[in-house]
Order: sequence, then C-alpha cells, then structure tokens
Amino acid sequence: MAKSKWEYVKGFEQEETLLPSCWVVIRLDGHSFTRFAKDHEFEKPNDIQALALMDYAAQHVMKEFGDIRMAFGESDEMSFILNKASTLYGRRKSKLISLIVSCFTAHYVNSWSSFFPNKQLQHLPIFDGRAVCYPSERTLRDYLCWRQADTHINNQYNTCFWSLVHSGMTGAEAQDTLKHTQADFKNELLFSKFGINYAKLDPRLRKGSIIIRQPKRKAEGEQLEDLGKPMQLDAANHVPSTMPANLKGLEVLHEDIIQEHFWVSRPEMLR
Amino acid sequence: MAKSKWEYVKGFEQEETLLPSCWVVIRLDGHSFTRFAKDHEFEKPNDIQALALMDYAAQHVMKEFGDIRMAFGESDEMSFILNKASTLYGRRKSKLISLIVSCFTAHYVNSWSSFFPNKQLQHLPIFDGRAVCYPSERTLRDYLCWRQADTHINNQYNTCFWSLVHSGMTGAEAQDTLKHTQADFKNELLFSKFGINYAKLDPRLRKGSIIIRQPKRKAEGEQLEDLGKPMQLDAANHVPSTMPANLKGLEVLHEDIIQEHFWVSRPEMLR
Amino acid sequence: MAKSKWEYVKGFEQEETLLPSCWVVIRLDGHSFTRFAKDHEFEKPNDIQALALMDYAAQHVMKEFGDIRMAFGESDEMSFILNKASTLYGRRKSKLISLIVSCFTAHYVNSWSSFFPNKQLQHLPIFDGRAVCYPSERTLRDYLCWRQADTHINNQYNTCFWSLVHSGMTGAEAQDTLKHTQADFKNELLFSKFGINYAKLDPRLRKGSIIIRQPKRKAEGEQLEDLGKPMQLDAANHVPSTMPANLKGLEVLHEDIIQEHFWVSRPEMLR
Amino acid sequence: MAKSKWEYVKGFEQEETLLPSCWVVIRLDGHSFTRFAKDHEFEKPNDIQALALMDYAAQHVMKEFGDIRMAFGESDEMSFILNKASTLYGRRKSKLISLIVSCFTAHYVNSWSSFFPNKQLQHLPIFDGRAVCYPSERTLRDYLCWRQADTHINNQYNTCFWSLVHSGMTGAEAQDTLKHTQADFKNELLFSKFGINYAKLDPRLRKGSIIIRQPKRKAEGEQLEDLGKPMQLDAANHVPSTMPANLKGLEVLHEDIIQEHFWVSRPEMLR
Repeated sequence: MAKSKWEYVKGFEQEETLLPSCWVVIRLDGHSFTRFAKDHEFEKPNDIQALALMDYAAQHVMKEFGDIRMAFGESDEMSFILNKASTLYGRRKSKLISLIVSCFTAHYVNSWSSFFPNKQLQHLPIFDGRAVCYPSERTLRDYLCWRQADTHINNQYNTCFWSLVHSGMTGAEAQDTLKHTQADFKNELLFSKFGINYAKLDPRLRKGSIIIRQPKRKAEGEQLEDLGKPMQLDAANHVPSTMPANLKGLEVLHEDIIQEHFWVSRPEMLR
Repeated sequence: MAKSKWEYVKGFEQEETLLPSCWVVIRLDGHSFTRFAKDHEFEKPNDIQALALMDYAAQHVMKEFGDIRMAFGESDEMSFILNKASTLYGRRKSKLISLIVSCFTAHYVNSWSSFFPNKQLQHLPIFDGRAVCYPSERTLRDYLCWRQADTHINNQYNTCFWSLVHSGMTGAEAQDTLKHTQADFKNELLFSKFGINYAKLDPRLRKGSIIIRQPKRKAEGEQLEDLGKPMQLDAANHVPSTMPANLKGLEVLHEDIIQEHFWVSRPEMLR
Repeated sequence: MAKSKWEYVKGFEQEETLLPSCWVVIRLDGHSFTRFAKDHEFEKPNDIQALALMDYAAQHVMKEFGDIRMAFGESDEMSFILNKASTLYGRRKSKLISLIVSCFTAHYVNSWSSFFPNKQLQHLPIFDGRAVCYPSERTLRDYLCWRQADTHINNQYNTCFWSLVHSGMTGAEAQDTLKHTQADFKNELLFSKFGINYAKLDPRLRKGSIIIRQPKRKAEGEQLEDLGKPMQLDAANHVPSTMPANLKGLEVLHEDIIQEHFWVSRPEMLR
Repeated sequence: MAKSKWEYVKGFEQEETLLPSCWVVIRLDGHSFTRFAKDHEFEKPNDIQALALMDYAAQHVMKEFGDIRMAFGESDEMSFILNKASTLYGRRKSKLISLIVSCFTAHYVNSWSSFFPNKQLQHLPIFDGRAVCYPSERTLRDYLCWRQADTHINNQYNTCFWSLVHSGMTGAEAQDTLKHTQADFKNELLFSKFGINYAKLDPRLRKGSIIIRQPKRKAEGEQLEDLGKPMQLDAANHVPSTMPANLKGLEVLHEDIIQEHFWVSRPEMLR
C-alpha cells in the first residue's frame, strides 16, 4: 500500500522544546473543580482527604519521572519542578505536559476509592497542564513564593468566609463582610468570633504541600506497588496506612518555603 | 502579604495558540505500552477488549468536548479531530492537549475493570499527546489516510508474525520470514499456511475505529452516566452492554475512510 | 582549541517553522515613519515619490525571492505573499522575515537618491517585519481586503484632514471636524469645499500598490541591474525612467482586489 | 466601508516573545557572502575594510537600540547582546530581529562608499537574523567563547590556505595540505614557509571585534550624524576619520573574551 504518499502530513508537526538550562515548572489545575468539589461534597473550606489525594497522586508522578526535583500543591493545583539540566524527552513541551498530566490523572482516579471509600465518583476529574521556564534559582523560588503566598491568602479568606456561612450568613453577606479587608482584620475576626487562632491551623492548609525526595532512602530496594487492594486510611496523616513501599522515599512537608531556612538546609535541592 | 511582588513570575508563561481556521488533530499515544500490554497479558496480535476500551474512553472525551468532530483509533493511539472553527479555550495548545489527555486517561483507568473484570491493573497506563494543525480538508483527510494505512500495514504484519510464532517459530525466525516481503506475499502466507482470509478479518483490526456523532440523536434527553457500577460486557460488540445512555449518540465504525464514499455520504462531517 | 566544549550553546536555538500548505504574509512596516516623513519633508497627505520608492524596493525583493507571488503596499507598509507550497529556507520564520526585511531596506536606502535627488538622508529608514500564516485562499484574500480597505479609509481621512489644514485650520480643528463622520460626509466635504472628486484621485492613493509578476516575460534574458548610476525619474510614472531591465517583468497595479474581477482574470495567482 | 468584517484576519498573528530574564543574542549573518565577497573583490584571507564596515554598521545599531550591551563580530556575522532585563518592544521576537537586521543593513549600504570609495556596489548585501535566549551569564559567555574560538579557528585556517594559494598551490592542493592538521602544524607552517608569526597578526583577525559602550562618555552632548558627506578613511584604524561624534561613545576592541580578565575588569558589563 502506498503509505508514503501520505507521510508528508508528519511535516505539519511543530514541536516546541523548552529552553535548556532553565528550571521547568509543570503546573496542573483541576478543571471545573468548583463543580467537582460540590458534586462530591468536599468539606469547606478545606477537604483534607481531597488534599491528601492530590499529594498522593503527585508522589506517584515523582516516582515515575525521576527528573522532577520537587512538587508544590495547594487546593486543586500541583506544580512539578523539573531539574534544569533535565533532557527528559528532549525537553519537548507537549510530551512532558501530557505525560505528567496523564500520570497524575491516572493515579487520582485509581486511588479515589482509597481516600474516599464511601463516596462514589459521580463524574471523572480532569486536569489541565502548562509548562513554564524559569531561567534562574531566584525566579524559580519567586514562583514558589507566589504559589505559597496564594495558598495562605486563599486559605485565610476561605476560612473566614465559611466560618461566617456556617454561622448563618448567606454567601453574599459573608462576601460583603470580607470585601477589601486586610489580613489583620481576618485574623482578628477568626479569633474573636470563632475562637480560631489562624497561626495554629493545620500547616497543610496554610503552607500547602511540598513534596521532596529523601536523598538517603534512594538505595533501598524498591517493591512493586499494589494498585488493586483498597488502602486503609491513617486518620492522623490523611494518607493510606498501607502506602506502597516504593513511595516512602518521597516526603510531604508543610513548611515555609518563602524564607531562606528551607533552602539553606537543603543545599542540594536546586543544584 | 506582599503577594504582588512575586506576581511578575506570571510573565514567564508563553502560551502558544493553534492557528485559526485549521483542523486540529490531537493524537494520544500509549506510553511504554509494549510493556503495559505484556504485563496485562494482552492477546496477540490484537486484544479486542483493549481496543474496545480505547474506543470507549475516546467516546467519553467526545462527550466532554463537543467541538471534537470525530476520532480515529488504532492500537494504543487515538486521534481527535477538532472542528476548524473551534475557539475552545482560545485554541491554547497546552490547555487542549492536557485536558483531552487527562479526560481520556481518567476514563481508561476508571473503566478498566469493566473491560477486564478478571485482570487487576499492575501499574497504571499513561498517554502522551500532541497537537497538529491541518490547513485544509485535503491535508486533514491525508492525515487520516496515513493513520488508516498504518493500521492495515501493522495489522497485516502482526497477524503474520504471531501466526508464525503461534505455529512454533521463534520471534527472530518469524521476523526473518517476513523481512522485505510485500502485501501479496503476506496475504498468501496467511491463507495458504493458516487458512486466514485477511479480507475477512474483523474490520476493527484492518480499518481501526472511527468514532462519529450521530446527528439525529442530539435532541434526546441526556442521562447522567453511572460511573461506579461494573458494566456487563457484550461479547459480540466488545463493549459494556450497559453502556451509559449518554454515549449512545456516539457511533463507532470500522469503515474505509481513504476512499471517497465515507466522506461523500457524510457531507456535514468536515463542514 | 577546544571548540567543541562550547558548541553546546547551539542547543539553545529554537527555530520556529511556518505551517506547511499555508499562504505566508510577510508584512514590513516603517519604524517611526511619522518622524522620518517629517524630517524628509514628505508631501501631505501623500508623497508620491515615497510611495514609488516603496514599490521599487518591493520589486527588488520579488526579484530576489522567486517564491513571492505578489506584494501589496500602502503608506510605509508592504505585504509580501509567499506561495503556500514554498519550502524556501525550510519555512524558517526568523530566516524569512530577516532576509526580506534586509533586502527591502538595502534597496530603499540604495535607491533613495534616485527618487529624491535633491533630498539628503537625514537619518536612515528602518523597517520591522512579521510573518502570518493564512490557511486558505479565502483567509488570504480577506487579509488583502483588510489592507486595501485600510488604504482607502486612511487616504480618505488624510485627504480631508490635510485639505482642511492647508485651508487654514489647525490640526486639532481639522480632527474635530472629521470626528465620527462617515465616508459620505467626507466625500461631500472634499467635493463641495475643495473641488476634489475622491473617486478621481490617483488610484495609487485609493487602492494602494499591487505588485505581480508578468508570467509571459519570464523567458526574457535578464540583465544585471546597475545599482550605482543615479536614475532619471519619469514624472508620469513616478519611477526612474532607467529602471533596470530585470525588474520589467514585475508589474505595479493600482486596482481593486476586494472584488472578484482581479482574481477571476488571474486564475494562476493563488494556485 | 465594512472594514471590520475583515479585521478577523489579525487573529492569525502569532507573536512569540523571548523568555524574560534571559540574555538575548541576535545574530546576523551575511547572505551568500561568498559570492558577495568575490563580486566585490574582497582581499583574502581578510578584507580589513569589509570588517571595519561591519563594525561601523554595528555601532550604529547600538546607537539606535540602547538596550544592546555589546556586540561581537567576525567575518560577515555580528552578534548583538540584549540586556537580560530589557523589555524593548515587549521582547517580541520578530520585531527585535527585523528592526536590528534592518538597521544594520541600512547602515552597511549607506556607508559602503565611505569604506570602499573606489568600488561600486554590484548587487546589494542582505543579512539574515536569528534570536537566541541564554538563561545565565555562564551560558552567554560560553556563547561568546564559541564565537571567538570560531574566529580564531577560521582565521588560522584561512591564513594558511590563502598563503598556500598565493604561493602557487591550487585551492584543492591547499585544502589537501591542511586536511586533519592541528593548530601547531598550521602555526609552524605559517612561520617556516611564510615567515608569519600567527600570534603577531592583527588582533582584529584573531580575536574578532568586541563593541562596547564607554560608560563615562554618556553625558556628552550628542550631535546629529551627517549621513550624506563621504567620510575620510583613517588608514591606521580602518575607520572613517570623520566618524560621527555620536558614535564616539562606542568602543571597538579586539581582546580575548574567553579568559576571565575581560569580564573581571568590566564588572558592569553583564549586570
């Protein structure tokens, strides 16, 4: 068969590659997750299990793609930081975005019943993805500062908003109460009206999730993960207590990454 | 909190848009599917259930994104054809690729147990994706010809190869026997040695899967699909017999799309 | 010398190619030409010699690059239409833009003294360039309609504006007089106040310049152009009377290209 | 006139921007300069006046675009280094390439007769251009090392080649003599056969031209350059002795930029 006469159509592919020697951020965002959260009755302002599932799927992505140095997650978004020296798939943009989004989605769907044993999926979650290059450690860290500051701002607002709503206000009234208010006002509101000390809230909510590799554990023998068996949830850690052994080298932290301390104590992170 | 001081990092995003007025092909490919097929003991040369699962996931993608005119699938790849007039997500390339890959993956994983009730996932499937613009009906149809010719060539080769192997040859011997042979030789080999009339093989294997919308059914009321309940497989059609009602407007064909007939009888397809 | 140790920097080049099978428009625009026109005392509203110099430089570009099918010029801009089947320089975007801009600029500067024998260049003209793909004859022709409509609109406005200014108004007064007025009002103004029948104005001003190849003359022997000798201007045609023989196969028209007639009578133009 | 009905064609423009915070190299190359050099009888292996004209045109480009930090030139190529913080024209790639190529070409053509008073242009010079991003000082300096090493390698080879040819060899014989030889062999050949001490050759030929801004002269009053008057050549410096006053703040060096010294003594260069 004259296959060749049609092969010219391959010439229409225009593959973009990511600039070498730049840190690459691949950020995933939940698609229509306001609706997804509502349909699956996520707790407000934060559903800890939903956040833990995000982190769990991200860990699997990091296990699959060794060139990912770290990940940062909040709400329904997850940023993966690809080593600036990585030549994975020739740094082809579409390839990297699609593989990471696909891997993340697969694990999110597959692990849903472990994290939500009593909730059936009403419709399936979808994530979009994008890739951004950062040419220096400074610009990359500023990206991470931007996301962690966003985590805090959104969480503080949402904590106030839902406290007001749970206390009887309508959504519109709560929105009015909070309009144009500063951080101090919101902290005071939480403390005086609801007895919430914002600074004492679960750091996962205030700081987001930072997923890193534990350098020492690398040498340990890897076991095949068991994807079929339902996992038991560990209430304290919000993660399945039977977490596959091969994920144990990946640590989930909820620390400040805006200040120097995190980076000074991990000099190998962005080397 | 001085959020704004970090917002400059958004300026590093460089979003590519797909040229207007072009047909857009978004093609997904299974990642490391040779290994995936082996680990899940796919039948050789073709695993009908695995092909049916691909088509089923593609139907869900077409249900989610109404601007997709048709899809073409073979083996572990699936091409979605986006209407040339579509302005979906501003034709942003990364957005479109990632959403479609994510949606496809989600359904593939979620429906696995319906198509393979007796096989547990050993590890999760991942798909990559790319987008290609075709400026005319002719170049788009040539793209589809290229893929359907590829389906035939691969299937003919694989049918010969596995017939030889199942009859006792080693893989290397089978490869040697087929090297540099033409289509005629392969057809003759199948017929004389294995009693296989190639032209009578399941058209799904020879022609791939074409998924189109049935224009008339559009008006029918849509029902929410039931994602949780295991589906019953209909042996004849290789699809779950309890296929959600809302997928019924999507038809899977295994016809020739290289010749004119398919297009002449569907003048609205590429309008 | 260890040259190779630095050659890795070539890997940072990211060459973009123009989608195959699309018409390519490469449009040049004069940079800061308001100032350039003032410093060189261009006549207002139109300086015929300046327009003729644009056309002349464009003809040289078309002579240099045989894949250019036609050009359209108005004011200080010039659009070159590259054959949709062209594979010139692998359709590399930067290469094509830069070569065409460079060639145009070289001829504009070199021919200045022939078109303006009594005006010395005060500073040098610069042009920017861009490339745009049009996937069909319809979209390409709409592009040309857009530019020719722009030519008319600008010329009509400028003819009114400068007539008012030459009759004693200040620029601000003329602007006020014309604000929000329609085409009919402007035509009436020109006729009743200044005795100008707009429809009778030099078509070069109303329609712009269309530069095409005369298919028949192709076979004629080419002579080397004489770049050094000052050319004599032919008052009627606004072009040097000693135009190099090798440009004679390129015709400058000032016709309507919005209507069908131009295209119907030249069926080979966009084939 | 219904202009708006065609304005949709603007939507086909796809402007690429250069990644922020990266050094941008815009490199120009002479198009078909082997022929151009032959037609204009450039001296071999190097035509000092032709090199000086390249530098002179580059100085004018740097005068026009203040965001250019430095330039490096050799043979018929010139690299301009744009400040990494520059936001000139929104870092639009096509815009920057085209303006710089256009400006360079304009000055090359306009100044030709000053540098070659006795040679008439037989046909006009054209340059192509490209833009490359370098994310760090290290990668940018490696780019410059690459070009300066190239200057040396080419010059050493060409000096040998033309010495052999001028001494009576054919081009093919000279090529054979030099094939696969190392730097030491070439230096020895030049010295023993032709009495040329390579290390003593004009540094312009061995090191190329580095054009920088003299920071101190910035405050001096600028004068309009006189583009029309033919300039007198200063034999020692190979530049017109009546160089416009406004170019005097731009210095042309022929130093080593591979070693640290150049950069250590100019700490502000890449800040």
